[in-house]
Amino acid sequence: MSVSSPTSSEFEVVKNEYSDRDYDVKISIPEFTCVCPRTGQPDFATIEINYIPDKLIVELKSLKLYIQQFRNLGIFHENVTNKILDDFRRACKPRKIDVIGRFNPRGGISTVVEAHWQE
Amino acid sequence: MSVSSPTSSEFEVVKNEYSDRDYDVKISIPEFTCVCPRTGQPDFATIEINYIPDKLIVELKSLKLYIQQFRNLGIFHENVTNKILDDFRRACKPRKIDVIGRFNPRGGISTVVEAHWQE
Amino acid sequence: MSVSSPTSSEFEVVKNEYSDRDYDVKISIPEFTCVCPRTGQPDFATIEINYIPDKLIVELKSLKLYIQQFRNLGIFHENVTNKILDDFRRACKPRKIDVIGRFNPRGGISTVVEAHWQE
Amino acid sequence: MSVSSPTSSEFEVVKNEYSDRDYDVKISIPEFTCVCPRTGQPDFATIEINYIPDKLIVELKSLKLYIQQFRNLGIFHENVTNKILDDFRRACKPRKIDVIGRFNPRGGISTVVEAHWQE
Amino acid sequence: MSVSSPTSSEFEVVKNEYSDRDYDVKISIPEFTCVCPRTGQPDFATIEINYIPDKLIVELKSLKLYIQQFRNLGIFHENVTNKILDDFRRACKPRKIDVIGRFNPRGGISTVVEAHWQE
Amino acid sequence: MSVSSPTSSEFEVVKNEYSDRDYDVKISIPEFTCVCPRTGQPDFATIEINYIPDKLIVELKSLKLYIQQFRNLGIFHENVTNKILDDFRRACKPRKIDVIGRFNPRGGISTVVEAHWQE
Amino acid sequence: MSVSSPTSSEFEVVKNEYSDRDYDVKISIPEFTCVCPRTGQPDFATIEINYIPDKLIVELKSLKLYIQQFRNLGIFHENVTNKILDDFRRACKPRKIDVIGRFNPRGGISTVVEAHWQE
Amino acid sequence: MSVSSPTSSEFEVVKNEYSDRDYDVKISIPEFTCVCPRTGQPDFATIEINYIPDKLIVELKSLKLYIQQFRNLGIFHENVTNKILDDFRRACKPRKIDVIGRFNPRGGISTVVEAHWQE
Amino acid sequence: MSVSSPTSSEFEVVKNEYSDRDYDVKISIPEFTCVCPRTGQPDFATIEINYIPDKLIVELKSLKLYIQQFRNLGIFHENVTNKILDDFRRACKPRKIDVIGRFNPRGGISTVVEAHWQE
Amino acid sequence: MSVSSPTSSEFEVVKNEYSDRDYDVKISIPEFTCVCPRTGQPDFATIEINYIPDKLIVELKSLKLYIQQFRNLGIFHENVTNKILDDFRRACKPRKIDVIGRFNPRGGISTVVEAHWQE
Repeated sequence: MSVSSPTSSEFEVVKNEYSDRDYDVKISIPEFTCVCPRTGQPDFATIEINYIPDKLIVELKSLKLYIQQFRNLGIFHENVTNKILDDFRRACKPRKIDVIGRFNPRGGISTVVEAHWQE
Repeated sequence: MSVSSPTSSEFEVVKNEYSDRDYDVKISIPEFTCVCPRTGQPDFATIEINYIPDKLIVELKSLKLYIQQFRNLGIFHENVTNKILDDFRRACKPRKIDVIGRFNPRGGISTVVEAHWQE
Repeated sequence: MSVSSPTSSEFEVVKNEYSDRDYDVKISIPEFTCVCPRTGQPDFATIEINYIPDKLIVELKSLKLYIQQFRNLGIFHENVTNKILDDFRRACKPRKIDVIGRFNPRGGISTVVEAHWQE
Repeated sequence: MSVSSPTSSEFEVVKNEYSDRDYDVKISIPEFTCVCPRTGQPDFATIEINYIPDKLIVELKSLKLYIQQFRNLGIFHENVTNKILDDFRRACKPRKIDVIGRFNPRGGISTVVEAHWQE
Repeated sequence: MSVSSPTSSEFEVVKNEYSDRDYDVKISIPEFTCVCPRTGQPDFATIEINYIPDKLIVELKSLKLYIQQFRNLGIFHENVTNKILDDFRRACKPRKIDVIGRFNPRGGISTVVEAHWQE
Repeated sequence: MSVSSPTSSEFEVVKNEYSDRDYDVKISIPEFTCVCPRTGQPDFATIEINYIPDKLIVELKSLKLYIQQFRNLGIFHENVTNKILDDFRRACKPRKIDVIGRFNPRGGISTVVEAHWQE
Repeated sequence: MSVSSPTSSEFEVVKNEYSDRDYDVKISIPEFTCVCPRTGQPDFATIEINYIPDKLIVELKSLKLYIQQFRNLGIFHENVTNKILDDFRRACKPRKIDVIGRFNPRGGISTVVEAHWQE
Repeated sequence: MSVSSPTSSEFEVVKNEYSDRDYDVKISIPEFTCVCPRTGQPDFATIEINYIPDKLIVELKSLKLYIQQFRNLGIFHENVTNKILDDFRRACKPRKIDVIGRFNPRGGISTVVEAHWQE
Repeated sequence: MSVSSPTSSEFEVVKNEYSDRDYDVKISIPEFTCVCPRTGQPDFATIEINYIPDKLIVELKSLKLYIQQFRNLGIFHENVTNKILDDFRRACKPRKIDVIGRFNPRGGISTVVEAHWQE
Repeated sequence: MSVSSPTSSEFEVVKNEYSDRDYDVKISIPEFTCVCPRTGQPDFATIEINYIPDKLIVELKSLKLYIQQFRNLGIFHENVTNKILDDFRRACKPRKIDVIGRFNPRGGISTVVEAHWQE
């Protein structure tokens, strides 16, 4: 089954009505799943996205649909976390963003990847 | 059912008897509910208000009644958190205030909004 | 994407070396995912299989591969739990078996389905 | 605001495909809210419904809409728990049903009501 | 300070609208305090009252006021638990009642007293 | 019942044998109770006192007796926390002190008050 | 240091005022310590005593003093648990008694001993 | 590395001084490790042994040494749990024994094996 | 029973093989017990020692024996925590050390003492 | 059984595709075991490795195999933690690395070792 990679064009954005103020939006997605590119086995993770919006806010339903597109994609832990940061940043141009991927254990070892970006 | 938005005039305030000292008051309201403006479905959240009072303290019963007025109001997560900060600030003019909205998951995604203000 | 339903022929079984004694094997699979047949949205669950083996034990790697075949299948909570019970029972003919599906919340409601079978 | 009481006609039911077997369905609804008939203040609870289906299963979305109809209804803890049992039972005629209401504390006292019915 | 002992006449009762059915009401009171009759020091406990109502239900506000009357009364752990059972039973004549007192540790030792009564 | 307010003269102090060094003493009192001055209803809290002693340490038994004197006193959350800080400070003249009052929920709202003082 | 073994004569007992009714008293002592008779090293445990009193109740302060007499006594896990049961039983002649010793891990292995007695 | 299987002769036993009474000894060993006979990879588990001794008690240090002999042995989950039951039973001839092996997850699946024996 | 106070000469030290690097060693001792010098009653605590070694590391078995010498010694909470810091520091001359004593509650009040030292 | 010490040549590394950005990788290995060089008894620990990769990322399967080589090696807590830091650093030349070893209690004392390195 051939699967194309999700892109930032999937996100729907809405106007931030409180852009005169720095505030934090922290989103937790405990139902993330993708596929290991080496073994073809499914991987499971909780993805956390924390950002300070500037002019735009990401609409949550479009975020859910973007996240679901990784379901059958083969991609490494480090890459998927950094790619979500890049796509989210391109979509809503936040003042600051962290993306954290907490991956379930494999072979008795669990991994967390934390990527950061700031203006 | 048409519902008007709550305002800062709902709050009753009392004199701060220890205004010569900075101290923190941290209020947790785990029974917040409002309505999603898109779907009309109820949303649930815990609202936390942390502030350093100046001359005035907000009376807790009036805060409870203010919070209940959101019960049938359609309003987004980001806006309700920022609005409570603005209304509370107008009512008691604190030296510093944070308002945090921890919203229950929808579609497997949960959201926290944290707004801050300081003199 | 058309997906065929997994069957009991997926399971590999091995001889139970202690079949003269009743003992319990309790398997927990926190990484189950399938698809809602109405909305096409992914569902997530923990599946628990508790059984008393008779002549045969189910090999765990084949169980993992069987479970992964639900990944893109549209099926209801009640049906998936009962189907796993039937397939597992056909594969290793246990003396007793319980299958429990603990499904993640949707719309603020979470569901557990518990199916039982005994000689 | 005048509010009429929800009834069993709100429920949508579907055919139980495994009615030849007793199995348990356990539903947890942590976002229940109604109104205290004495004080007019909102009450909050987690409602749990555990049943063994016979010929019919209750569809979860219709259950969610039924539960939401209590939002502005004045009703006592003991009565709301027993009424949900009666309505649910009328709708899908289960072999056995328990309804548990876990109400948030008021005045430092919290209450759980557990109603049971069996063929 | 002389303090008289609370009695069953403190309780207000209301009609049980579902008396045709056995159901459980479980009340938890984590803010109980009385006084040790030997040392005069305050004691703290969580009191739990679980009962199956017959014709009458105890109104919660009157229960709260009854409980508060122990605040300055000197009484032993075993006696206070049994007395609450007797008073509650006299007030609403339940089909079955358990009263549990979970007392905070004193001198590194904590005590739970569980009294039971059934028709 | 008329109750006079406790004062700093209640505290017994002892010499700090390690006054050449800054060290922290953190005291937790989960059994605090006083009375709401508006409603006359009892309030419950955990009081935490964290201080760096200078020449004197507060003896714990006298602290317990001081705390018990609030038992039947009507006083607001903000005031009781600040008063304990002032009385404790007057009694042992610490280099630094924090007093935190974590009050049990009332009407679904819980409050924490944190007062600080430093040389 | 020679240490003599504690006996049932250490216990002070008082009259059970509710001896017409079976009720449970559950005592937890998380600060038990004795000495390993082989290595001379200290052992630590939580001792739980659950009993249904008959004519007599054990006074808690005398129980504390009895327990402290094990502090420097060399005795095995199984024996200390059974001895406490025998001594307690001799002292207050309960209708039923369980004694549970939950011993801290040694060499990565922890042990619980549960002794029971009933009329 | 060739490893021979541990046997019941490894256990040291001592006389049960309270053999006139049924009592439970519950041993928890969270540091069990052996090797998967298929992959050669290490497995980790918590082993629990619950028994009612008859004439003999197993000495804990010899149990620890027996358990360590599995460290480099290739053996399946079901077999190791049943073998420990058989060896322990042969060594001290208890009235009743349960052995539970709680194995760490592999490939997202965790397994518990519970073997039982009674006179 | 007369008991002499433990001293720093009890500690055995070994060479730090990584003294070219700052690293932390954090030791937790949940089985500390001493005696209250006022009442003669036993006290229980968890002692935590966190240090950055310089040329020497403290051997853990000698630390255990040092700690056991407090078992029958009468000493106050504040003094025992500071004394352990001084003795440990004299024995291995660390670059930095914190000692924390978390004492079990007495009379409903629990105390933590935290002493610090740094080059 | 003679065992040689693992070295940095065991690690397989792959190219970091996001080396233009600082991000954290946090790896947790709860199944670490080695042998005490004094007593020959097995030790158990959770090893945590947190690093900011530069040009290279460590492949997780090779890390697992490296970790398993300590299984029968005699080595002290402080040394094993520092050695893993050195070997990992040599293998992938990270910008920053912390290694934390959380060792299971021995003789009632548990130890954590935290080693740090930064460019």
